[in-house]
Amino acid sequence: MDFGVCYYPEHWPEDRWAQDAAQMRETGISVVRMGEFAWSLFEPERDVFHWDWLGKAIDVLAGEGLKVILGTPTAAPPKWLIDERTDILAYDSQGRPRQFGSRRHYCFSSSAYRDETVRIVTKMAERFGLHDSVIGWQTDNEFGCHDTVRSYSPAATMAFREWLAEKYTDIDCLNQSWGGVFWSQLYRDFAEIDLPNLTVTEPNPSHVLDFFRFSSDQVLSYHRVQVNIIKSLSPGRSIYHNEMGHFTDFDHFALGAEVDVMGWDNYPLGFLDQEPYADNDKRRYLRQGHPDFAAFHHDLYRACAPKWGVLEQQPGPVNWAPHNPAPLPGMVRLWLHEAAAHGADIGSVFRWRQAPFAQEQCHAGLLRSDGMPAPGLSEVKQCVEEQISLTPDSVMSANVALLFDYETQWMSECQPQGDWSYLMMAMGWYGVARSLGLNVDIVRMGQDISNYALVLTPSLFHITPPGLQAFKQTEAALLFGPRSGSKTAHFSIPDELAPGPLQALFPAKVVRSESLPDWWQATGLFAGETVTGRHWLDHIEGDVAPLVTSDEGDGLLYHHGSAFMFATCPDDHFLRTLIQSLLRERGVETTKLPDGLRQRVTDQYKYLFNYGASPVSLPTDEDTPLYGEDPLRPGGVAIFSRGDVL
Amino acid sequence: MDFGVCYYPEHWPEDRWAQDAAQMRETGISVVRMGEFAWSLFEPERDVFHWDWLGKAIDVLAGEGLKVILGTPTAAPPKWLIDERTDILAYDSQGRPRQFGSRRHYCFSSSAYRDETVRIVTKMAERFGLHDSVIGWQTDNEFGCHDTVRSYSPAATMAFREWLAEKYTDIDCLNQSWGGVFWSQLYRDFAEIDLPNLTVTEPNPSHVLDFFRFSSDQVLSYHRVQVNIIKSLSPGRSIYHNEMGHFTDFDHFALGAEVDVMGWDNYPLGFLDQEPYADNDKRRYLRQGHPDFAAFHHDLYRACAPKWGVLEQQPGPVNWAPHNPAPLPGMVRLWLHEAAAHGADIGSVFRWRQAPFAQEQCHAGLLRSDGMPAPGLSEVKQCVEEQISLTPDSVMSANVALLFDYETQWMSECQPQGDWSYLMMAMGWYGVARSLGLNVDIVRMGQDISNYALVLTPSLFHITPPGLQAFKQTEAALLFGPRSGSKTAHFSIPDELAPGPLQALFPAKVVRSESLPDWWQATGLFAGETVTGRHWLDHIEGDVAPLVTSDEGDGLLYHHGSAFMFATCPDDHFLRTLIQSLLRERGVETTKLPDGLRQRVTDQYKYLFNYGASPVSLPTDEDTPLYGEDPLRPGGVAIFSRGDVL
Amino acid sequence: MDFGVCYYPEHWPEDRWAQDAAQMRETGISVVRMGEFAWSLFEPERDVFHWDWLGKAIDVLAGEGLKVILGTPTAAPPKWLIDERTDILAYDSQGRPRQFGSRRHYCFSSSAYRDETVRIVTKMAERFGLHDSVIGWQTDNEFGCHDTVRSYSPAATMAFREWLAEKYTDIDCLNQSWGGVFWSQLYRDFAEIDLPNLTVTEPNPSHVLDFFRFSSDQVLSYHRVQVNIIKSLSPGRSIYHNEMGHFTDFDHFALGAEVDVMGWDNYPLGFLDQEPYADNDKRRYLRQGHPDFAAFHHDLYRACAPKWGVLEQQPGPVNWAPHNPAPLPGMVRLWLHEAAAHGADIGSVFRWRQAPFAQEQCHAGLLRSDGMPAPGLSEVKQCVEEQISLTPDSVMSANVALLFDYETQWMSECQPQGDWSYLMMAMGWYGVARSLGLNVDIVRMGQDISNYALVLTPSLFHITPPGLQAFKQTEAALLFGPRSGSKTAHFSIPDELAPGPLQALFPAKVVRSESLPDWWQATGLFAGETVTGRHWLDHIEGDVAPLVTSDEGDGLLYHHGSAFMFATCPDDHFLRTLIQSLLRERGVETTKLPDGLRQRVTDQYKYLFNYGASPVSLPTDEDTPLYGEDPLRPGGVAIFSRGDVL
Repeated sequence: MDFGVCYYPEHWPEDRWAQDAAQMRETGISVVRMGEFAWSLFEPERDVFHWDWLGKAIDVLAGEGLKVILGTPTAAPPKWLIDERTDILAYDSQGRPRQFGSRRHYCFSSSAYRDETVRIVTKMAERFGLHDSVIGWQTDNEFGCHDTVRSYSPAATMAFREWLAEKYTDIDCLNQSWGGVFWSQLYRDFAEIDLPNLTVTEPNPSHVLDFFRFSSDQVLSYHRVQVNIIKSLSPGRSIYHNEMGHFTDFDHFALGAEVDVMGWDNYPLGFLDQEPYADNDKRRYLRQGHPDFAAFHHDLYRACAPKWGVLEQQPGPVNWAPHNPAPLPGMVRLWLHEAAAHGADIGSVFRWRQAPFAQEQCHAGLLRSDGMPAPGLSEVKQCVEEQISLTPDSVMSANVALLFDYETQWMSECQPQGDWSYLMMAMGWYGVARSLGLNVDIVRMGQDISNYALVLTPSLFHITPPGLQAFKQTEAALLFGPRSGSKTAHFSIPDELAPGPLQALFPAKVVRSESLPDWWQATGLFAGETVTGRHWLDHIEGDVAPLVTSDEGDGLLYHHGSAFMFATCPDDHFLRTLIQSLLRERGVETTKLPDGLRQRVTDQYKYLFNYGASPVSLPTDEDTPLYGEDPLRPGGVAIFSRGDVL
Repeated sequence: MDFGVCYYPEHWPEDRWAQDAAQMRETGISVVRMGEFAWSLFEPERDVFHWDWLGKAIDVLAGEGLKVILGTPTAAPPKWLIDERTDILAYDSQGRPRQFGSRRHYCFSSSAYRDETVRIVTKMAERFGLHDSVIGWQTDNEFGCHDTVRSYSPAATMAFREWLAEKYTDIDCLNQSWGGVFWSQLYRDFAEIDLPNLTVTEPNPSHVLDFFRFSSDQVLSYHRVQVNIIKSLSPGRSIYHNEMGHFTDFDHFALGAEVDVMGWDNYPLGFLDQEPYADNDKRRYLRQGHPDFAAFHHDLYRACAPKWGVLEQQPGPVNWAPHNPAPLPGMVRLWLHEAAAHGADIGSVFRWRQAPFAQEQCHAGLLRSDGMPAPGLSEVKQCVEEQISLTPDSVMSANVALLFDYETQWMSECQPQGDWSYLMMAMGWYGVARSLGLNVDIVRMGQDISNYALVLTPSLFHITPPGLQAFKQTEAALLFGPRSGSKTAHFSIPDELAPGPLQALFPAKVVRSESLPDWWQATGLFAGETVTGRHWLDHIEGDVAPLVTSDEGDGLLYHHGSAFMFATCPDDHFLRTLIQSLLRERGVETTKLPDGLRQRVTDQYKYLFNYGASPVSLPTDEDTPLYGEDPLRPGGVAIFSRGDVL
Repeated sequence: MDFGVCYYPEHWPEDRWAQDAAQMRETGISVVRMGEFAWSLFEPERDVFHWDWLGKAIDVLAGEGLKVILGTPTAAPPKWLIDERTDILAYDSQGRPRQFGSRRHYCFSSSAYRDETVRIVTKMAERFGLHDSVIGWQTDNEFGCHDTVRSYSPAATMAFREWLAEKYTDIDCLNQSWGGVFWSQLYRDFAEIDLPNLTVTEPNPSHVLDFFRFSSDQVLSYHRVQVNIIKSLSPGRSIYHNEMGHFTDFDHFALGAEVDVMGWDNYPLGFLDQEPYADNDKRRYLRQGHPDFAAFHHDLYRACAPKWGVLEQQPGPVNWAPHNPAPLPGMVRLWLHEAAAHGADIGSVFRWRQAPFAQEQCHAGLLRSDGMPAPGLSEVKQCVEEQISLTPDSVMSANVALLFDYETQWMSECQPQGDWSYLMMAMGWYGVARSLGLNVDIVRMGQDISNYALVLTPSLFHITPPGLQAFKQTEAALLFGPRSGSKTAHFSIPDELAPGPLQALFPAKVVRSESLPDWWQATGLFAGETVTGRHWLDHIEGDVAPLVTSDEGDGLLYHHGSAFMFATCPDDHFLRTLIQSLLRERGVETTKLPDGLRQRVTDQYKYLFNYGASPVSLPTDEDTPLYGEDPLRPGGVAIFSRGDVL
């Protein structure tokens, strides 16, 4: 894994750059990401370009042997450009232009902005595309951050109509697909269709779903505009984009097909604070982050592209969450080791030096704002040194796959029922498997899953023919959560009812579905212990056997052959017991790890990560670790050689 | 009681219609409501009308002997119409047009929309008005649903000014009535008056109250536009409208005067979930609904018009509440029996078959979306059969009346103080009386109340001369809640202070009023037991005797002769004890029913409804019921003959 | 102290005025505030002025020897004026004009409104400026009420650009000061700068801070427009303005420099209910208000101007808080005595008589709306009589100063981190000192603090050179809270890190800061007892000694010489212990007062105020009080003569 850092030379005096570069090299950093917010410096007024400062900075870094990933500056168009072409602005769902003054104020559908993007990216790629030290390009920055995928602008309205016309060709086909006969929603022409905001009550969910799909497609086509220029003017360089955590507004599998390296920005503490984790987890993991947050996204983005990596690693407290604690000593090292253990190509820390001004002045860097080392610096250095001493490694394959599906997330949002979150449930199922020490691959619908013993599908609203085919072609145990197969591609109830096409494997119908309040739970007995279900209760009829029945007599878990289906959202213990049982039947023994401990096993090594608040004794059946004390302290990493097991 | 169903033939292939009709007849259904959302099918473009499909559907239903209530399609004007005449749109209180894409996007004050309404209703009534099978018309659908009574559009502004000019004639009269001398709010002309939204702080409450009254009047006059056409073109048919639960934005007594049958839509589970019931009730009644919800509205809408009925009965889970559980087995039957026991003319279920598409696809029908029977179907059939076997019955008069007043609700909203809800309090008082097994009539202010033993008036902000006259002319015990008589017709404090005109019966003044936090309560002793008051504390002075005094020495309940007044919101036990005592003095003995059990007594029958979560033993002093097991299961109905008592 | 009342003769028939005036005189009132909401009566249409009614009212009052403070009517411009000049309206942060219909609908930056202000104030001052009975003028009413300091109007945008141009002269200076290099926020011209609202994510905090400063300055310059006219046309009269509690949107020290008497409006119950006090305090002080609320503001506004006073004293329940209880018997007397004990020049009650109409009809007066005495009237009379019997007194100086800083409040808002409130913390520190029976002076940064034994600085984000100088020039113990010295004047991190300039006294650096969730706390031992810190954890390194260290080893309190700095927000006990220890070292012994009891010591008297819910025994070492029973009842006041101690 290459170690990287994000660097903004434009924030510091030029005479500091050489010292920074030398210190990066000494720390073991080899790649520097830069340039992605500097449009107003690159082009202070239209067609007046100042590239030399960046050229000098690249040369200073090159002088220390550092390579560079350049970011295109399109996430922050300057004020003069906005004032010239106000049709660049995105609109919020309340119908208001989203104003200049921070970042990401552009609309993906603005043709004006696509023109300007072509102009600036072309100029930048012409200037730096063939520089020896430039090894890659990051397009823009964090597509979708601050809720920017979905814009409700006039430009988006026009583009949506074109997108619909292309998809449906015939307006009657759209009317049919959306069920426009309901509530007099029949259209005569694509030009009559507005965006689904500011309606009196809930808009048509098929309308919403298509708007979500369109919005995702707009990100992809906007990205492609940049890629085409860069590929042409900077041949041989890798294309990166930096994704976010807990973010599903566009299809990352689709974007992954158009990058060389799928990057993501790993901020475990901020997301623990701002996302709906259990209060108890928020307290236990205050300074570590949720133990499955980073790994889930590592495995998700690993599934998207040939290579992947962390482009922004939290180095200390950040500024943007409701509360911003400091990581435990050792967490930066732990997070970087964990990325490596999941197969990252790059681990890049954000940022080199804390900026003393503007929006992110409370965001730590590897250096403090006064230029002195911050705690993260020595942790990066230690991790580099430890990584150097490890034999190059390839990731070991997993017994378990978890199928994640962006359309399922959108379908769960476009007509929400209950308090249920698909994304949180998927992360929860991932965590339960991982609490058993298992490696988990994340897969997409339709992907070959024949090599797994167990495939977890927390939910899958719409099942495509290739998706069904992949399920049919594996001998893995298939474990489905509620709502699976509950919708057609157009977000209708299938003629044959849920689970729709899955009835080929699981011959039953969901004849009624209940969404239930947060306090509700169904309890039953499974393997002699009480298990519970929450949020949903699907009433299932057919040629399937109930494995668990609630005290009220409702089936909570059914199966037919190797297909298993929950009629409710199982608690962790319920799911874990089932996973253990299914794997045991397939010859895989598992044991629950101590709370807070997580494990990753590669071809050569076994890693243990202590996310917990207490020290954990190392396993007695392992040799002395290459790294890691016994007991392993909170924030500690233990690495064992598996040379003997191969 | 006629049994009905809501049917959308336009959602299904024509070749299914005959099967549906036959199955309706077999179920015992005799009336079908249809047509109310089909404008874009009736008139796919301006002046191109397609009526034949509906004619065919009516004929198919007629072939099975089914009668039809047609809904005018004005709740959902089609997109082409909105695009032609954008001044149709309603505006929300934030000043934004409420866009096409769901339903009810029109403004009651739009003259454009009144023109279009005349056009479509005339055409429809011309086409179907004299059809033998058409026995009634429903105007529009759920006036006011989705907060649509009050529109803040330019059209509403103009209409409000005209309404004010007509009401006050002279601007000085308005200035005087509103207290415009306060905060420089004197107007020179009606044309200066805006709607009371987007003000810097609280607008003038008299201004708000008049806007509420105006908005209610706009609904009535809009309804009248439709009625006039239908009465002329479809003579002899009944006019229906379907009201909602928990809804007070227009005066339903006034609307009731302009329909033949006051319908309402009974969704006990959805309203339990979304309205501010106590958490404990939400848990106990998750799958039954609150035990007084349906009955309160039955009695309220019964008070509005010569006939009344349920036009939409929840048949299973719905889609629109935060959570949508399924009713207990038997609840659909229970709800329909309860409507009959309160005297309904019709009990119509919404809807025949679950739609697989669009906004309501998670809303159950009597058939599932795949066309197979859903659980509600057999419950309807059972209820039909049981009703058929009962002797025709007339409703028995009640000993107790509860006075409900729409203006009091508006007055409690136009200048809210504290967390108190008039509607919830009125429902609570109703429930306390009903927990004693009492029949309760709901009455309006000024109605003859001389035949009751007890009249409950939870509050009544402004008392009109006819209202006072009715109180004077009864010998009933009169029981008033706090804030009674606290305002003039223009929402000022009466010169003589509260209770204003009631001082004729209750010679006292409220010299100070306190609104108090949710945690506050006053405790005192009544009949040897602790009782509490909450939310309000009125300080009352005059020639009245305190019956209950708080531990701090504040009077909580006063009386003078047969007039009783609470100085606070009594808890259920406090109120129940007083009601029992007052009725006992008037020769009516009452006993509290078991929790969750409710009773309705008619001339011929006594009905018991078990809304509770546990079985309840039937009373030992009754004969064997015509229907109902002992103990009566949750969701069970017991019907006893009272032949012997007559 | 003069006793006053707010009177609206325009609300009542002219033939009542004489009775009101006589009753005021009999009550002991000598000053009447009037006129401040009567523009639509003064000028019912443009250039038609009706002053005579007010003239008559003044004369009637003068007939009873009453003096008058006239309010300019600019807080409520009439509708005809708004319709003529719509550019008067303020805009909210959502970009919408704030409409007519309540009050304060004007924008401080509107030049149209400044023109109109000059016109009406000139006319009014010409008419009444030399009237013998007019002793003062109140400008406008409660600047900033209803969130009106910060307007997002086009007028404000233009004025902000001018303000910035004047401040920075050169756009590069602004770019540098704001860190515009971050996120491409460099501007080419002041005309490019918008207001910092409706941005996609957090705007630049330096931009926000300057907007806050600008908005404060606009209030000052608007006020000055009025003052200049009045000073010229009504020579010798005092200028008043009535400030609010819990309100910091403009710099009250700066406004104080431009009035003769700094008034404020004292509503203890409403603010207890609506501000974020602890639930426990809300329960204990429901009918008394928080025991430090009034005193804090007395001392704050006393620090602003040569004279100060209460212009509106709550007389009973009010109308505008979520809940509006009545004060305990005696509280109006207590509040007025407390104002006198803090040195008020005037104590004026709002209002004479409860208005029966419009927005404030639930707001009590000294008379009820029916003209009869309300409970407050006799309490005012009693207080007048008691005050008359006291020897004229001057306020005693305090041992303790608390430094309060409006810029610190703005800085804590312009880039919030955590749940921390500077204002609530400052009030909390004030309360802790006061719970020890101490007189506390509130001071501003840079003020001479050499006469105090202890200076409390709960926080002080930016420290100016005069501010540092004042700290250097005192021998007082200096006690600083977290974030002190953490920002430059432009809201950047200082080059030398926090505490910035304070390093001259406290040679250390805050190398890392954590904002922490509400449930977080650090515990440590201080003087043998457990103390806790919350909200923040600053990591401090340097030549300073930790006095308290947390169980996790983090320093919670450091000192160097007489400078003490908390690394966290201390609990009351932690702070109190430190204050007692520091004062003891300086020869001042303190004892904690009983809960709810507060004390104020002047040259001649010692006052005890029982804000608690239980009676409190009077101290045994005092003589018999001039007023006050033993034990002192809730709401009671005890006044002891200190003649012997002088």
